[in-house]
Amino acid sequence: MSHLGYPDGSASLSESEPRASERAALIDLLAALAYGELSAFDRISRDARLAPDLAGRAAVAQAACVELTHHRLLVTRLATMGVDPEGAMAPFVAALDRFHDRTEPSTWLESLVKAHIGDGLAADFYREMAELIEPASRSLILEVLADSASSAFAAREVRAAVTANPALTGRLSLWGRRLVGEAISQTQHVLAERDSVMMLLMAGPGGLSGVSDLMSRITSRHRDRMAELGLAG
Amino acid sequence: MSHLGYPDGSASLSESEPRASERAALIDLLAALAYGELSAFDRISRDARLAPDLAGRAAVAQAACVELTHHRLLVTRLATMGVDPEGAMAPFVAALDRFHDRTEPSTWLESLVKAHIGDGLAADFYREMAELIEPASRSLILEVLADSASSAFAAREVRAAVTANPALTGRLSLWGRRLVGEAISQTQHVLAERDSVMMLLMAGPGGLSGVSDLMSRITSRHRDRMAELGLAG
Repeated sequence: MSHLGYPDGSASLSESEPRASERAALIDLLAALAYGELSAFDRISRDARLAPDLAGRAAVAQAACVELTHHRLLVTRLATMGVDPEGAMAPFVAALDRFHDRTEPSTWLESLVKAHIGDGLAADFYREMAELIEPASRSLILEVLADSASSAFAAREVRAAVTANPALTGRLSLWGRRLVGEAISQTQHVLAERDSVMMLLMAGPGGLSGVSDLMSRITSRHRDRMAELGLAG
Repeated sequence: MSHLGYPDGSASLSESEPRASERAALIDLLAALAYGELSAFDRISRDARLAPDLAGRAAVAQAACVELTHHRLLVTRLATMGVDPEGAMAPFVAALDRFHDRTEPSTWLESLVKAHIGDGLAADFYREMAELIEPASRSLILEVLADSASSAFAAREVRAAVTANPALTGRLSLWGRRLVGEAISQTQHVLAERDSVMMLLMAGPGGLSGVSDLMSRITSRHRDRMAELGLAG
């Protein structure tokens, strides 16, 4: 890993201390996802107010509560590992808040596109990372990611809206591209500061080229999701 | 009831049609409480952001989700009664939204005082009304009202804060008085337009003097709650 040029070598997966580094990466992943779920609660509960009727508002609020349940599962796991959840989540608060602040939906359809595209991107990223960590935490992460019915609802609603009114396509496609741009930008901020996760990625099958394969898989699935919504990726 | 002077007699509890009027009052109560719980979700999930740390934020978010569960129970009950929940809740949306808009907390302590004082007032009112309706709905309303652990937490936090810093007492006492003022004002708006609930009240033990007894019981419990918080009613 020396070619990556971390001067103090602190985060390198040297032969002598692979476990400490893997543990640090695992904690980072669980904590980032845990804060992601808490901020998802916050964002979705706010979006609920954009719903066109009370039944829709309650359905979106319910989706927010599902995210909160995930948050609690992940915080419990961190505590079980002997980690202070508050401290572990702290490094990810600013980047996630910035992402949500910069992608605050102004309409019900924008909030649905964000639910589908944003959650999809995050889920793809965490699923890829889960392949690289120990089985118990992998199961927890996959369980938390699987349990999201709101995305199918969002896709159905957006597709129906753009079919009924094709003039919406351009603006919502632009919105989808802005979401992916912000997501990539904030993820880079985090990775730049969290060596352990970057190390875990590089230590995966294929090393550096494995990372670029991962990026192209995530990008390709993003395009599929945009197409599902009837939007141009 | 003729002394109340409803010219068309539509809402009077005449001997010939007590059931229709009682059913209308019951639907109004369940629907007002149902929308109250949905707007409580909205308000509490917003207040969660005022929490001083992530654990507090998750705890407040969890309290919001408990309110949403209550909302779903009440909506299910309305649907079981053959009532369209959306239509039944509609008459109460404006008054409850106005209450929350006018009492938006600007600090964590204000949000806690609101949780304790506002929920307490609402619970007292619905508990009094529950005595006047049929047993199955009464049980549901009492169940929904009982299940609120957040209030004890709020009382503890506020009391500790004013004990540590008595200078807070004046401003928070004023805030508590403003909350009760707005609650009474918005309840009056609703009662003025919903004859059925007013009729139910008047038909209770004691008639008109029963209503004033009820008001004084609610006021006295409100003063007790203010004292619990260490505030001046």
